[in-house]
Amino acid sequence: MITLTTDFGLEDPYGAAVKGVILSINPDALIVDVSHQVEPFNILQGAFLLGYCYTFFPKDAIHVAVVDPGVGTERRGILLATPQGSFIGPDNGIFSYVLRDAPGFHAPRGGPRPTQVPVPRAWRAYSLTEPRFWRHPVSSTFHGRDIFAPVAAHLSRGVKPEEMGRSVPLVTYLPVAEPRWRGSRMEGRVVHVDCFGNLITNIPGSRVIGKEVQVEVAGKRIQGISSAYLGRGELVATVGSHEHLELARPMGSAAAYLRAKVGDLVKVVRK
Amino acid sequence: MITLTTDFGLEDPYGAAVKGVILSINPDALIVDVSHQVEPFNILQGAFLLGYCYTFFPKDAIHVAVVDPGVGTERRGILLATPQGSFIGPDNGIFSYVLRDAPGFHAPRGGPRPTQVPVPRAWRAYSLTEPRFWRHPVSSTFHGRDIFAPVAAHLSRGVKPEEMGRSVPLVTYLPVAEPRWRGSRMEGRVVHVDCFGNLITNIPGSRVIGKEVQVEVAGKRIQGISSAYLGRGELVATVGSHEHLELARPMGSAAAYLRAKVGDLVKVVRK
Amino acid sequence: MITLTTDFGLEDPYGAAVKGVILSINPDALIVDVSHQVEPFNILQGAFLLGYCYTFFPKDAIHVAVVDPGVGTERRGILLATPQGSFIGPDNGIFSYVLRDAPGFHAPRGGPRPTQVPVPRAWRAYSLTEPRFWRHPVSSTFHGRDIFAPVAAHLSRGVKPEEMGRSVPLVTYLPVAEPRWRGSRMEGRVVHVDCFGNLITNIPGSRVIGKEVQVEVAGKRIQGISSAYLGRGELVATVGSHEHLELARPMGSAAAYLRAKVGDLVKVVRK
Repeated sequence: MITLTTDFGLEDPYGAAVKGVILSINPDALIVDVSHQVEPFNILQGAFLLGYCYTFFPKDAIHVAVVDPGVGTERRGILLATPQGSFIGPDNGIFSYVLRDAPGFHAPRGGPRPTQVPVPRAWRAYSLTEPRFWRHPVSSTFHGRDIFAPVAAHLSRGVKPEEMGRSVPLVTYLPVAEPRWRGSRMEGRVVHVDCFGNLITNIPGSRVIGKEVQVEVAGKRIQGISSAYLGRGELVATVGSHEHLELARPMGSAAAYLRAKVGDLVKVVRK
Repeated sequence: MITLTTDFGLEDPYGAAVKGVILSINPDALIVDVSHQVEPFNILQGAFLLGYCYTFFPKDAIHVAVVDPGVGTERRGILLATPQGSFIGPDNGIFSYVLRDAPGFHAPRGGPRPTQVPVPRAWRAYSLTEPRFWRHPVSSTFHGRDIFAPVAAHLSRGVKPEEMGRSVPLVTYLPVAEPRWRGSRMEGRVVHVDCFGNLITNIPGSRVIGKEVQVEVAGKRIQGISSAYLGRGELVATVGSHEHLELARPMGSAAAYLRAKVGDLVKVVRK
Repeated sequence: MITLTTDFGLEDPYGAAVKGVILSINPDALIVDVSHQVEPFNILQGAFLLGYCYTFFPKDAIHVAVVDPGVGTERRGILLATPQGSFIGPDNGIFSYVLRDAPGFHAPRGGPRPTQVPVPRAWRAYSLTEPRFWRHPVSSTFHGRDIFAPVAAHLSRGVKPEEMGRSVPLVTYLPVAEPRWRGSRMEGRVVHVDCFGNLITNIPGSRVIGKEVQVEVAGKRIQGISSAYLGRGELVATVGSHEHLELARPMGSAAAYLRAKVGDLVKVVRK
């Protein structure tokens, strides 16, 4: 089973080329699209989408993610072998949400720039350096088709991860916005706006569920946490399927109502 | 074989989460997307899309439909076991077009509100009440992932429908617009606008084919029924692949030309 | 393995109907979407998308392409049996890029109108005239569902191409824009704008790679050919994954920057 998370869109034939390459190597591969609609070049959005859903797949699934503005430059291709599945793509932070879930992972302090972090203890990371598992000639603009797809296909046929390249001790982490406490307030951010206009935040559901809180966003205040999307046309705070605090407007769009976007501040105040 | 009809869109990872859950339970499931582009919360549109295409699938297919604004409320989840396939989703009318096709079904009189109707004779309906076939913990915002997907997967592995919950005698029907006779005129409605701008109506093709009729829509009159999309740039009436009267503008968009939308009146006058 | 290239969009149930028909005949068929987002009625765009990616699929793959404004008219349905795969669809030029790749193919001189060309030597072409491999009743508006899908499904089950209809010596070619030399300049065209805003041209990469050239497009001049998408925000010329000259703006959109579109002139001048 191989999943695909890319910014290829659905109008172009790039996703089909990737599938053709995989199926030419392993006709029995089962390919599942996570999304091809990541905003072009938005690595962190791709990381979020994959981070949301990889846990729902079997632990032997292979996840290929290609949001790859640095294709053709020095950036490495990488294969992460983890207890939760294998991950293949550019080493540019696209697996940051998966990294963050690893037991013992500590987000490095500092700004929003990509940084190198140690490979988590139960994982192995391999730089993709073995051309015999690639498609040739390798283009300088589409490693998704020429490197990541064939590597995933060979892996799905039983080639060992360590054959794909040399083991590396560090991988790239693109810092994910983390909520912080300011006195009795928690300050978080909108990290995703879904197609219903729901605002998904980075505030864990466990911080708000069953507690008396007030949520502040875009100048509005919401009292308490709803158990579901209740109250047509009202602005509600709930814990969504992401297990994080989510702001919604049942039968409407919270994003349109609040003119909110990714990065906007969300405050939770205990009462 | 499991089909999916949802309003999840293609940018978010919700459809992928549903697929991951299904494939974790039944790795041999063959999943086919009907559409994930139902307008958010538009139950009747989802019902139409599924109603159009379920008959083209094998009779042992399992159709999962999730347009579910009432998720987390009292609305039931339901499994319909029918001679034309199994249907799983919220009991909110999403299966109304399928119900309408059942032999002996009579649309209840009355307005556009959802209503309870008897389960058709050859069908069985089960309220989804057996948590052992669900994914846990069950969120209150995404039963597509946590209830409908695992129930479909278990059903595809051979669990009997009656194990999923208790049998129920009534299901929810969301009234579908029906054409009516007014003297020598039949009045129908546009029920779908497709991506070509064709206007699909609720007037059965059998009522117009081979007959001398005039069709009136948005102030325009069309003489006769064309055998196909003939006459570039003209407005034509034909019987489309839905087997209903359809208005089209070959190589153009009837919807854009007429500024027409779902719900618009279409009249057929016999000559 | 059956691929689909259509202008059905993703909101309508037409693609699902095609898949249901295929899977009802051959439940073991593996269906891969190339794209359903071809601009409605744009045969040449569909031809380009399929032309880009068919070579990445196994040589026994069956490629169904349905951009079919002439459905229900005299235009034939066709099956092309080639060493690179089988191709099924309307005989309206949708396979022009595949034809162009055939050894020995010579583009006919003349304007942009569809023209009849001989079937390449190693190919066989069959007019789809055998109704026993179709779905009945055959609609006059959706041969994708009623003829091309069932023919592909029967072919994938081992029915011989020659059983599908009578052999024909000529097929329809829709002239593809070809670059030409004007003295020391090569004049080509933008043939595709992808979702990143990259401009794909019809100028073969072999004409520019490793050479000292200047590229002119939309009043701008670009010196030299980059080895990849290098130089954030700059306009660069490179040889893309299509193996043709491509104009890009790394981390941006060349199309938006240049207001360029399909058909625009691109000049290459040797220095």
